[in-house]
Amino acid sequence: MSFEFEIIKTQGRARAGIVHTPHGDIPTPVFAPVGTQATVKAVPPRDLHELKASLILANTYHLHLRPTSELVREMGGLHPFMQWPGPILTDSGGFQVFSLAEINKIDDDGVTFRSHLDGSKHRLTPERSMSIQENLGADIIMCFDECPTPKDRAVVERAVGRTTQWARRCREAHSSDEKQALFGIIQGGIFEDLREQSARELSALDFPGYAIGGLAVGESKAEMYAALSVTEPMIAPEKPRYLMGVGEPDDLAQAVQMGVDIFDCVIPTRLARHGAAFSRSGRINMRNVIHAKDPSAVDPGCDCYCCQNFTRAYIRHLLKADEILGAYLLSIHNIRFLIRHMEMMRQAIIDGDLKAYADDFLNQYLRLEKV
Amino acid sequence: MSFEFEIIKTQGRARAGIVHTPHGDIPTPVFAPVGTQATVKAVPPRDLHELKASLILANTYHLHLRPTSELVREMGGLHPFMQWPGPILTDSGGFQVFSLAEINKIDDDGVTFRSHLDGSKHRLTPERSMSIQENLGADIIMCFDECPTPKDRAVVERAVGRTTQWARRCREAHSSDEKQALFGIIQGGIFEDLREQSARELSALDFPGYAIGGLAVGESKAEMYAALSVTEPMIAPEKPRYLMGVGEPDDLAQAVQMGVDIFDCVIPTRLARHGAAFSRSGRINMRNVIHAKDPSAVDPGCDCYCCQNFTRAYIRHLLKADEILGAYLLSIHNIRFLIRHMEMMRQAIIDGDLKAYADDFLNQYLRLEKV
Repeated sequence: MSFEFEIIKTQGRARAGIVHTPHGDIPTPVFAPVGTQATVKAVPPRDLHELKASLILANTYHLHLRPTSELVREMGGLHPFMQWPGPILTDSGGFQVFSLAEINKIDDDGVTFRSHLDGSKHRLTPERSMSIQENLGADIIMCFDECPTPKDRAVVERAVGRTTQWARRCREAHSSDEKQALFGIIQGGIFEDLREQSARELSALDFPGYAIGGLAVGESKAEMYAALSVTEPMIAPEKPRYLMGVGEPDDLAQAVQMGVDIFDCVIPTRLARHGAAFSRSGRINMRNVIHAKDPSAVDPGCDCYCCQNFTRAYIRHLLKADEILGAYLLSIHNIRFLIRHMEMMRQAIIDGDLKAYADDFLNQYLRLEKV
Repeated sequence: MSFEFEIIKTQGRARAGIVHTPHGDIPTPVFAPVGTQATVKAVPPRDLHELKASLILANTYHLHLRPTSELVREMGGLHPFMQWPGPILTDSGGFQVFSLAEINKIDDDGVTFRSHLDGSKHRLTPERSMSIQENLGADIIMCFDECPTPKDRAVVERAVGRTTQWARRCREAHSSDEKQALFGIIQGGIFEDLREQSARELSALDFPGYAIGGLAVGESKAEMYAALSVTEPMIAPEKPRYLMGVGEPDDLAQAVQMGVDIFDCVIPTRLARHGAAFSRSGRINMRNVIHAKDPSAVDPGCDCYCCQNFTRAYIRHLLKADEILGAYLLSIHNIRFLIRHMEMMRQAIIDGDLKAYADDFLNQYLRLEKV
């Protein structure tokens, strides 16, 4: 089956839907764990399946540098390479080029940069990003965009123009391959008129889905919500909306209510490796001595392998002893926490209860009643 | 059920048997993966079950230092703490005190040392080792022994005497708890007469099982096999024999033929973290560039999750990219490789084919025909 977005139910601006892809269905709203280097850090693919992950993100920039997209293509593409048979999304490389690499030159044609790994010189253009993403073979691929810091108006303005030009070139370069849906990325930083301009210009190109980029990169939550609130109504309602790089549980609850369908973020696995766990009552530092003899689960209501079997005392021991199993168990839990959160929001939308669920979640998670 | 060793079949000096313990049966000969800090590094306990591990080792020295045996006891003992419901063996702490810690004083009463973690001062005596191991609650526990370098006769001679004295004190200190079987450890380095003396003195104490200690600590393989060959006939045939710290596939094949029933070693997981894999044709450096585009499994004949699903190309990529999943997948494979090797040797003993299996294995593993 080729790409199709089906909306099942709406509540206010929120939507419950299904993204159909050649590698299976993605119930939305959805949170996608990030497998930067063709592996969700510390989590085997069979565990991702158990956690009910339905979409995995992989990073074009990292895979281009190592092992190269040509090698992945030779191994049959990302799906067999990483043994994840379900839907995959690749980003365009843009965000990492601007945040990780040492930039040599940005011009209207593309970006020349040095690898953060070994200093080797590379060039990404819209056309090259398309060919790399075609090599990788994900179900959803992204236009190459310029992703600047969101508050410098002149820089953002130039990036919006370039992002539109590059999006047009991406659409032209991308063979009208039904196996890969190409999404546009709306830029514009925190500036309402630039967000509108970017959304309008990209909408004219009629992509099958739209990402909201350039957020969660240093602005405040209020600024992010404001920019999101402006951008969302500009996207045709029948297209899926993807908020890139956002995964804090409270942000998910807010953004789903603003009509976002797809999210990705490294936060569940990154926090896990630093010893932090999500719970309904907020983030927990599992290294804290108060957990040393705690026989309870990390998050007693959770249905994951970690919470169903292990105590906080054991997890804390693993973290203090620098054991890989600690990162694994918390990664499992944190991913499952976000996926379950999305499952519950989806059901709430279907039941017409989203606001009640989200208010209750936010109150408890942000401990609003406890101050 | 309390501890019991049942011999099902013998072939030459080799035996196929079952060690019955309160937490289940251990088919022997058996290889026990090591869970130093109450976790087999990188491997969740449900995976150990899948790999058909039947016995796990944990280290008294490490767990005494962190999180402390008192904490483990408070959490119900090692079995619930690490969520491994099957048989567990703890060592006495002796080996690590002599190899990892900074020794302050050894006398006939015990050893005073400083922790390798934080320099804190500790004292282990036979009585303290027993109380720690009782706190941990393993099914098989070990006498506190002095484990010197194996080639200095005067040092080894003194260690043999002390090990006997300490074994007597361990037996007295260990409440005749039917839940924990206390094994003696035969020392004597590479000296035949000292091995005999140690075996004779410890046999007089009539432990339910015997370990052969002080090997695989720097002597040659020929010296190890010679010492083993001398020691094994000194142990009453009805008692299980445990060769501590040995896990190279060729050593397992040799030692099973010399009548050893139980093995443990960190080698499968340590090698995995360094990117090496066991295979029937010898050890493989999976970081080697020759594997970069290799679509075959690490060990095509293996039935583990790693070999059934992933290519050498992918494993190499994970290792080069320093991804935890690489250590996990190779740990899974290396453990399964050794366990399967033991399963095949056990079946061969039952079928009367051990010599043929071992010869074939050794020829292929050591590439004896290929030179």
